[in-house]
Amino acid sequence: MRFSEATLRLPDWTETFLANEEQLYPTAHERMRLAVRLAQLNIEHQSGGPFGAAIFELTTGRLVAVGVNRVESTHCSIAHAEMLAIAIAQQTVGRYDLGSQQDLVYELVTSTEPCAMCLGAIPWSGVRSLVCGARDEDARRIGFDEGTKPGNWVQSLENRGISVLRDVLRKEAEAVLVEYLKRGGLIYNARRKESPELGR
Amino acid sequence: MRFSEATLRLPDWTETFLANEEQLYPTAHERMRLAVRLAQLNIEHQSGGPFGAAIFELTTGRLVAVGVNRVESTHCSIAHAEMLAIAIAQQTVGRYDLGSQQDLVYELVTSTEPCAMCLGAIPWSGVRSLVCGARDEDARRIGFDEGTKPGNWVQSLENRGISVLRDVLRKEAEAVLVEYLKRGGLIYNARRKESPELGR
Repeated sequence: MRFSEATLRLPDWTETFLANEEQLYPTAHERMRLAVRLAQLNIEHQSGGPFGAAIFELTTGRLVAVGVNRVESTHCSIAHAEMLAIAIAQQTVGRYDLGSQQDLVYELVTSTEPCAMCLGAIPWSGVRSLVCGARDEDARRIGFDEGTKPGNWVQSLENRGISVLRDVLRKEAEAVLVEYLKRGGLIYNARRKESPELGR
Repeated sequence: MRFSEATLRLPDWTETFLANEEQLYPTAHERMRLAVRLAQLNIEHQSGGPFGAAIFELTTGRLVAVGVNRVESTHCSIAHAEMLAIAIAQQTVGRYDLGSQQDLVYELVTSTEPCAMCLGAIPWSGVRSLVCGARDEDARRIGFDEGTKPGNWVQSLENRGISVLRDVLRKEAEAVLVEYLKRGGLIYNARRKESPELGR
């Protein structure tokens, strides 16, 4: 039998964690704190890699959707935290373009700067704001690969009308990466045998 | 209620189309012919954009999974043909890394060269070979945006041990793009109002 779909699924614990749906997240720090907490819970529950992300309505601070890394646990290399947050947010609001309504502005908050794939996904998503915690090099330092990104990636997003805020709770976000490594978490890689590069 | 998953789903017509599961595709031309046919059928059925992709076991020519563009139809900006093919292939074989078994080599065949997101996804997928039909600039010419890709993207994949073959049935693949435009197909874009760039 041939499969006709693939599902990007959050771990069960997110349901309990997100039960308080009415909470608002008015500041970038509060929004990042949620993303970092998701990354932390993901490694505690052993449900994926040390990455968390969320999408918010920027004007209200309302949480729309969350994502955590689910690559290993769902057998799916595209299941990065940012991709889950984007796909779930869009299917929640019923639009493939989160930028199509002038009065609703969406922001993607991610515990670590996006890899090459997630970076490429951001302009298509319609978010108008990106907030990052740990840096690209923090992830590389513990062995993850971020892929081949354009050197001017921040500028290239801003040229498309997407604002970028970096280093929000960077230390806290990096601490989750380091803890994951200490716990012996899998730092996976499709090409480990062929090159020193590691796949995130 | 908060959504806990997002599904990347093929259109129903693919089930009938792929009923003959035993057919093998020994040459790159035959494999590309399938990808272009998927793109063509996707616009005829109005189930998405003019892009098709498939993943094959390279040594046997066996088809593992297919993908077509489903962005508009499933409200999901990450639902590009290549992403569906990768995610469905991995969930079919039960591994997030199609490169983890030495005796099984997988190839991604895509009717148009990958956009920035899909390009970033390729190293994580574990495929060891990429075959492209229409060029990046063929898609741009009809108004689609491919995103900000590294200038040396072919070399960057080859440096990771992924071979790249371009221009296979390029004219046939480009003809599907042109036909889509003539039919008045949506060339969507998250940032249309802010810049002349168009999102694929």
